[in-house]
Amino acid sequence: MDGEDRLRNHDNNVNDIENEVLLDGNGFERHWSDIADKNVTYKEPLLSRRRNTTSQIAIVGANVCPIESLDYEYFKAFAAYAGCNLGLATVAASLCAFIAPAAAGSGIPEVKAYLNGIDAHSMLAPSTLFVKIFGSIFGVSAGFVVGKEGPMVHTGACIASLLGQGGSRKYHLTWKWLKYFKNDRDRRDLITCGAAAGVAAAFRAPVGGVLFALEEAASWWRSALLWRTFFTTAVVAIVLRAFIQYCWTGKCGLFGQGGLIMYDVSSAATSYNIPDIVAVLLLGVIGGIFGSLYNYLVDKVLRTYSIINERGAAPKVLLVIVISLLTSCCSFGLPWFAKCIPCPTTSTVSCPTIDGSGNYKLFQCPSGYYNDLASLFLNTNDDSIRNLFSTSTEKEFHISTLFIFFAAIYCLGIVTYGIAIPSGLFIPVILAGACYGRLVGRLFALISELDMGLFALLGAASFLGGTMRMTVSLCVILLELTNDLLLLPLVMLVLLVSKTVADSFNKGVYDQIVKLKGLPYLEAHAEPYMRHLVASDVVTGPLVTFSGIEKVGTILHALRTTGHNGFPVIDEPPLSDAPELCGLVLRSHLLVLLKGKNFLRDGVLTGEEILQRFAAFDFAKAGSGKGVKLEDLDISEEEMEMFVDLHPITNASPFTVVETMSLAKAAILFRQLGLRHMCIVPKAQGRPPIVGILTRHDFMPEHILGLYPRIECQK
Amino acid sequence: MDGEDRLRNHDNNVNDIENEVLLDGNGFERHWSDIADKNVTYKEPLLSRRRNTTSQIAIVGANVCPIESLDYEYFKAFAAYAGCNLGLATVAASLCAFIAPAAAGSGIPEVKAYLNGIDAHSMLAPSTLFVKIFGSIFGVSAGFVVGKEGPMVHTGACIASLLGQGGSRKYHLTWKWLKYFKNDRDRRDLITCGAAAGVAAAFRAPVGGVLFALEEAASWWRSALLWRTFFTTAVVAIVLRAFIQYCWTGKCGLFGQGGLIMYDVSSAATSYNIPDIVAVLLLGVIGGIFGSLYNYLVDKVLRTYSIINERGAAPKVLLVIVISLLTSCCSFGLPWFAKCIPCPTTSTVSCPTIDGSGNYKLFQCPSGYYNDLASLFLNTNDDSIRNLFSTSTEKEFHISTLFIFFAAIYCLGIVTYGIAIPSGLFIPVILAGACYGRLVGRLFALISELDMGLFALLGAASFLGGTMRMTVSLCVILLELTNDLLLLPLVMLVLLVSKTVADSFNKGVYDQIVKLKGLPYLEAHAEPYMRHLVASDVVTGPLVTFSGIEKVGTILHALRTTGHNGFPVIDEPPLSDAPELCGLVLRSHLLVLLKGKNFLRDGVLTGEEILQRFAAFDFAKAGSGKGVKLEDLDISEEEMEMFVDLHPITNASPFTVVETMSLAKAAILFRQLGLRHMCIVPKAQGRPPIVGILTRHDFMPEHILGLYPRIECQK
Repeated sequence: MDGEDRLRNHDNNVNDIENEVLLDGNGFERHWSDIADKNVTYKEPLLSRRRNTTSQIAIVGANVCPIESLDYEYFKAFAAYAGCNLGLATVAASLCAFIAPAAAGSGIPEVKAYLNGIDAHSMLAPSTLFVKIFGSIFGVSAGFVVGKEGPMVHTGACIASLLGQGGSRKYHLTWKWLKYFKNDRDRRDLITCGAAAGVAAAFRAPVGGVLFALEEAASWWRSALLWRTFFTTAVVAIVLRAFIQYCWTGKCGLFGQGGLIMYDVSSAATSYNIPDIVAVLLLGVIGGIFGSLYNYLVDKVLRTYSIINERGAAPKVLLVIVISLLTSCCSFGLPWFAKCIPCPTTSTVSCPTIDGSGNYKLFQCPSGYYNDLASLFLNTNDDSIRNLFSTSTEKEFHISTLFIFFAAIYCLGIVTYGIAIPSGLFIPVILAGACYGRLVGRLFALISELDMGLFALLGAASFLGGTMRMTVSLCVILLELTNDLLLLPLVMLVLLVSKTVADSFNKGVYDQIVKLKGLPYLEAHAEPYMRHLVASDVVTGPLVTFSGIEKVGTILHALRTTGHNGFPVIDEPPLSDAPELCGLVLRSHLLVLLKGKNFLRDGVLTGEEILQRFAAFDFAKAGSGKGVKLEDLDISEEEMEMFVDLHPITNASPFTVVETMSLAKAAILFRQLGLRHMCIVPKAQGRPPIVGILTRHDFMPEHILGLYPRIECQK
Repeated sequence: MDGEDRLRNHDNNVNDIENEVLLDGNGFERHWSDIADKNVTYKEPLLSRRRNTTSQIAIVGANVCPIESLDYEYFKAFAAYAGCNLGLATVAASLCAFIAPAAAGSGIPEVKAYLNGIDAHSMLAPSTLFVKIFGSIFGVSAGFVVGKEGPMVHTGACIASLLGQGGSRKYHLTWKWLKYFKNDRDRRDLITCGAAAGVAAAFRAPVGGVLFALEEAASWWRSALLWRTFFTTAVVAIVLRAFIQYCWTGKCGLFGQGGLIMYDVSSAATSYNIPDIVAVLLLGVIGGIFGSLYNYLVDKVLRTYSIINERGAAPKVLLVIVISLLTSCCSFGLPWFAKCIPCPTTSTVSCPTIDGSGNYKLFQCPSGYYNDLASLFLNTNDDSIRNLFSTSTEKEFHISTLFIFFAAIYCLGIVTYGIAIPSGLFIPVILAGACYGRLVGRLFALISELDMGLFALLGAASFLGGTMRMTVSLCVILLELTNDLLLLPLVMLVLLVSKTVADSFNKGVYDQIVKLKGLPYLEAHAEPYMRHLVASDVVTGPLVTFSGIEKVGTILHALRTTGHNGFPVIDEPPLSDAPELCGLVLRSHLLVLLKGKNFLRDGVLTGEEILQRFAAFDFAKAGSGKGVKLEDLDISEEEMEMFVDLHPITNASPFTVVETMSLAKAAILFRQLGLRHMCIVPKAQGRPPIVGILTRHDFMPEHILGLYPRIECQK
């Protein structure tokens, strides 16, 4: 009776397996049918009657010929795979190269530069937004080793910029209430919130988003900004959650499934001892070294690519095509080097995985076996990360597999960044980091009790810390991703070590890219050599000043012949007893004033009646590239001889420094207050009331070291 | 056989219960013995042969006479309870009143003020540290409705200050390497790290600590500071964890058990719908209203207490005694109004709880019943919070119980803050908030599926948001406390609503206390009326200036007759062509210079040889109250007539503004750069080179509105 029972039980189990519809963590339905049945099914033509549940065509290539090793069929599979990738890549590259070249790359350096005060029009233009969104979708689908997190940050910032400008007049998207953002500070705040929202949405990490905006994106921080970004990410979190809850049952396709990364390693044990700490420290050091090397190589590759990219749109697309083919070859070719591994007997998911993404890809292996390298390559990047982070899967990946995958992703990541597609850095870095994390975990398997999935997480943290050099925000993002706060001390430790190690070699990857792009980024601190100079030392070029009541012709001439955005206004007798600095007038305000044509026949001071003919918003900051332009002015010869009163539009309280002020102190003042112009006044009396104007460019190391090549030796 | 079996099972169960040593979440051992046995045990004398496992004697009072309702015995119990409380309270109050009055209160406002640039010696003195630690221990033990979180932040800051000053010379604790902190900025950073460490240790929330330091404590924030606080809290987290792991088995008594609050509500379901959101919004509004009312009442009570506290140490101690008696009466008297509730049959913990802290206190109830109000009152505050936050305990507390407890804690919290003991605000606020959270939860029980424990957490969040007005840091602290990131959207929402509602009534409690203490706290923004004034409008008092080479007597006279800390130095002919501003010299540097006695016979300029007689560190900022004092100088009559060259110690690059600069802009400049002195230079030529000096006090609203009482009407 005992034996009979067992037999019956066995029968039941078999039936269970055959009929069970397994729901894994992502809600994918997997039918576990037997092997014979499979062979029949997959002889059918490609792409017909089959559901393609992931955005990558990769899976087609992997599943098309599961058993037979006929070279011809594999070649067909590769052609389909590489062809699809190439098509998608070409679309992404064309969008980028022909419509909005500014959309290439991560976008985080651009957002960072904008928030530092560098307002380049194309950076956050509507066309950039469009290309960023669709280019990123096509780029990720094309199987490149790129992430979508950076592009999402840029997308968030672009949308914020669009809102902050009162919509886009060109595309007929305008709202009246948005005109309240027509000043630099509120617009900057809005774009900071947009960047935070991007991170919050990309990683489902609202607090991480706030901290990212604080630590990496923003250059100035106010308490009000903290509260505004927090509000933004709270809304993102609530909306995202509502959609995911609504879509959980499949009402809206695959929304919220797989795409948004969310790894759960909370089931792993979290007690740790001395050997674990040693392993973590080692990971930190490795992350620091690999991270700084990564930054170094990315820098070199970007410099090389810039030669190609400068030649026009066609070479850009060609470069993308080459990289796409390289990526396809790697991801289809390298799995051949991996040995087949017998399926684990205890696994709860099907092995080999046939449909959708999953841990166990069959590839060229016989049934009952899986190819672990194919599981990593022929999968969405998100699923590969999830596989690497999965717990209790110590033996799932062979050491050689991890090594090959790490090397491939590390190199592909470096050569892919910089081509003309929107490409995030987070995913490649996390992938590579998780790989060597697992490798180190295998080394310490005997003396450490930490799970391999945890090692992968710590490896990813160390590599992120080594490349991006963030601390608190990365830590919180990783914790929000993995939903386990007990890991906190280990993640903190690994981030601190890797950042410290990497900082001794070079700067963070985003800082490097900002510098490489030639953007005049103002550092928060003054360079040491600035202490040996005074403010007047770096003034160059002739100073163009206006009188309080100036001839229209003079103003127009100055506007035409110089590129200055600010002009000092000096009151001279008879307006005052001696020449004195009245203030600073901006180019944009001058243009609005001249357009209004409130000219005087002679240079006699009038009242404030001029301003009555303007509304306050006329002088408000227009959207990027939307203000009055010099060409818009239509001034007659007669009017050129007339006068205009500049007093109403003069900023009477410009920030000034004495010419003998230490340049280091002047730089701190300039940076801390977020100035665009700083007037230099003379120390001794009896000289002109202003001796120069400093702008952002005057504080750039290139400018100063160009003037004083030997100054660094004086240290 | 079936019946026999069940009987045997029953027997076994009984044995199990009698012998089982239950380990609850906190590791307290609870012996579950039967009632008869208890009666025998607890007739024995108080405090003998019994383990007192919590720091509060409260439990003794509750357990001494569990069954008999003899009035005499209850009075004895009350006397023991109130007596112990009173003794502990008196010790705490005496420490505070006689040794370090600055240790009273939360300490967070003081830390905030210090980091804003207000350097009062006693705030972070070693004696304050000592009293803060021990006063807090005694105060919390005395059963007051106070927390230890604020004091821990202050403790952290005090330790940092002690380290930053190179130890304490008075108590023979000095280290040489610490002299590198002898400048304001590094010392400020160190104290920020100390405050972050305090929060990290108090709540076991390292990221929360960093954010607290950022959002509430620090006035200036640099990227380097973020990374330093992060490092500090990482070390705190690792050390704390190592100790807790080591002590888990009871090797070091109760270390890490119960004291550090850590509530786990992660088991509760976290899916929510529209009614839940409505409930959360309601909680937010209630929190905002109660919070601002709390702040208003605390302000009123503090003003009343300050009259008493100003009369000396004895009235201070007396006030503490009165409040202690009031607290004892409330916590022992109010539970009599609660009805006895039958013990739940499904509970896994013993009911009624006899030893230590626990959910079910017997108090006056018959066996098999428990008094829910006594469970809240006669427990440590941490355990009460844990009880209120516990999940799946919908019916544990009666509505009237929650109402009485809320009213009592709300009122006791208000009257307790401000007495002469170290008293944190977090715990009373969390307690009261958790109460009304549960009350609202009961209201919504029919339409909402959220757990009562979750409602308690959200209530606590709303009240915290309403009183303290922090957002991100509170959110992260609460998440780190409860270890469930899925609650994030709800906690964010409730915090935002409560802060918004409360901000429309008054300021945060810490800001109010800073203002009440009369500390000249500089706000980050300029007041609107400042736009109508210029910098020279607020200059008061005569200006004391020195020549570049000044007579010793003149300097000594100026130092004696004024309290100024900075003096402008003006070069006059023959040193320069016309009088010009040479720079600013500090009182502390003048004192060091005069002490060195490098005087000249006549006013002829010498070289820089003077400085060779000083080391750089001579002029470094000394520890609070440790610099050269005016009384230390011993200048002879002859020397008074000699001259001293001020150039070597003059700061030649002081920050200056033109007299016509808008006061609002000057205030921003002063605040953003963290200045102590700002020189006002004239606009027109032919006047003295400096017209005034602005300090922190000149930007205080009281000062400006005193000078221009009608200015606020001009808005």
